Amino acid sequence: MNIGIIGAGSVGGGLGKAWAARGHRVLFGVRDPHKDSVLALLAEAGPNAAAGSVADAVAFGEVIVLAVGWGVVEDVLMSVSSWDGKVLIDATNRFEQAQRSAAEDVAVLAAGARVVKAFNTIGAEHFAAPQFGPVAASMFICGDDPAALSAVAELAAELGFDPVDCGPLSNAMMLEAMAWLWVYLARAKTGRDIAFALLRRQSAR
Amino acid sequence: MNIGIIGAGSVGGGLGKAWAARGHRVLFGVRDPHKDSVLALLAEAGPNAAAGSVADAVAFGEVIVLAVGWGVVEDVLMSVSSWDGKVLIDATNRFEQAQRSAAEDVAVLAAGARVVKAFNTIGAEHFAAPQFGPVAASMFICGDDPAALSAVAELAAELGFDPVDCGPLSNAMMLEAMAWLWVYLARAKTGRDIAFALLRRQSAR
Repeated sequence: MNIGIIGAGSVGGGLGKAWAARGHRVLFGVRDPHKDSVLALLAEAGPNAAAGSVADAVAFGEVIVLAVGWGVVEDVLMSVSSWDGKVLIDATNRFEQAQRSAAEDVAVLAAGARVVKAFNTIGAEHFAAPQFGPVAASMFICGDDPAALSAVAELAAELGFDPVDCGPLSNAMMLEAMAWLWVYLARAKTGRDIAFALLRRQSAR
Repeated sequence: MNIGIIGAGSVGGGLGKAWAARGHRVLFGVRDPHKDSVLALLAEAGPNAAAGSVADAVAFGEVIVLAVGWGVVEDVLMSVSSWDGKVLIDATNRFEQAQRSAAEDVAVLAAGARVVKAFNTIGAEHFAAPQFGPVAASMFICGDDPAALSAVAELAAELGFDPVDCGPLSNAMMLEAMAWLWVYLARAKTGRDIAFALLRRQSAR
């Protein structure tokens, strides 16, 4: 699959490297594709990865990942002229109270995209190896478009996550609250080598 | 330990039975201790359990559990004349948007109690047996008093949960959002035989 990744920090870089290693083609959309940190990322990511502008990444990807700091989300999304029904994974977290979820704001700013909230509830260093002993970390996913949800669940499963369909995008606040808890625990209590899982017994559907 | 439980529904009844079975003494505080459903609960809970008024339960317990529907929380808490530093476990969930967490409202209504949020992120049927294959369900706990947090963590661990200290009571919104996700998944996606766990690798503190 062709995946456009907006941002080349720990989240975008981590996802891009992990998917490039599994044979997907990745294009990082950044302000300066020739920046040292981007060149270093491309060297790590190997031949399936390239860098260009944000517009290049959106044009390239069947699936686009939004992986920039919340402060620049509005500018980045408004710079895109058309989303044309593309799948847009919102991996951001906003660390302040708001009337609604960050994902719902993203959906308004990226009108025409099929927005899926995902990859926001765990530290980026776990994207490449989400197995914790006998249990895989869960990837909690929500969105309004069934085909988009399935595509993102498949991309999560390829990395080794256990995808959990959490319903419509209006449920994104729950996933964002879970992310705040991850960050709190990582910083204040346990360190970063943690992940949430949804346990199921055999009787569960 | 003497445990007062306000409410004798699925949450209060489930916790009371589980702790009574482990040798704690439990007093359910209810409006009518002679109601059929309360008598049936006492028959199941065995010799360590009794029923009385809400005031009886608060006077009896070193630890008190608040396990009533959100609609009657205010009336129930305001009926208690003094909390006298007792540990008050808020196991409630409020299924509507609010300015702050239910637990923080409980702390205001029960001035003088040491409030701990716990036992709200999983279905009551799992209180007696929270092991899911190789992994124990986590019990996410937060509160401002370290001794109260420790006491509740110990009561959770006795039931087989993996207690997770989630910091101050101001973090309760995250636990309440997790509860909404549990309820959503149970009703719409997976059925009720599910639980959240915090996975940790050995390197994690």
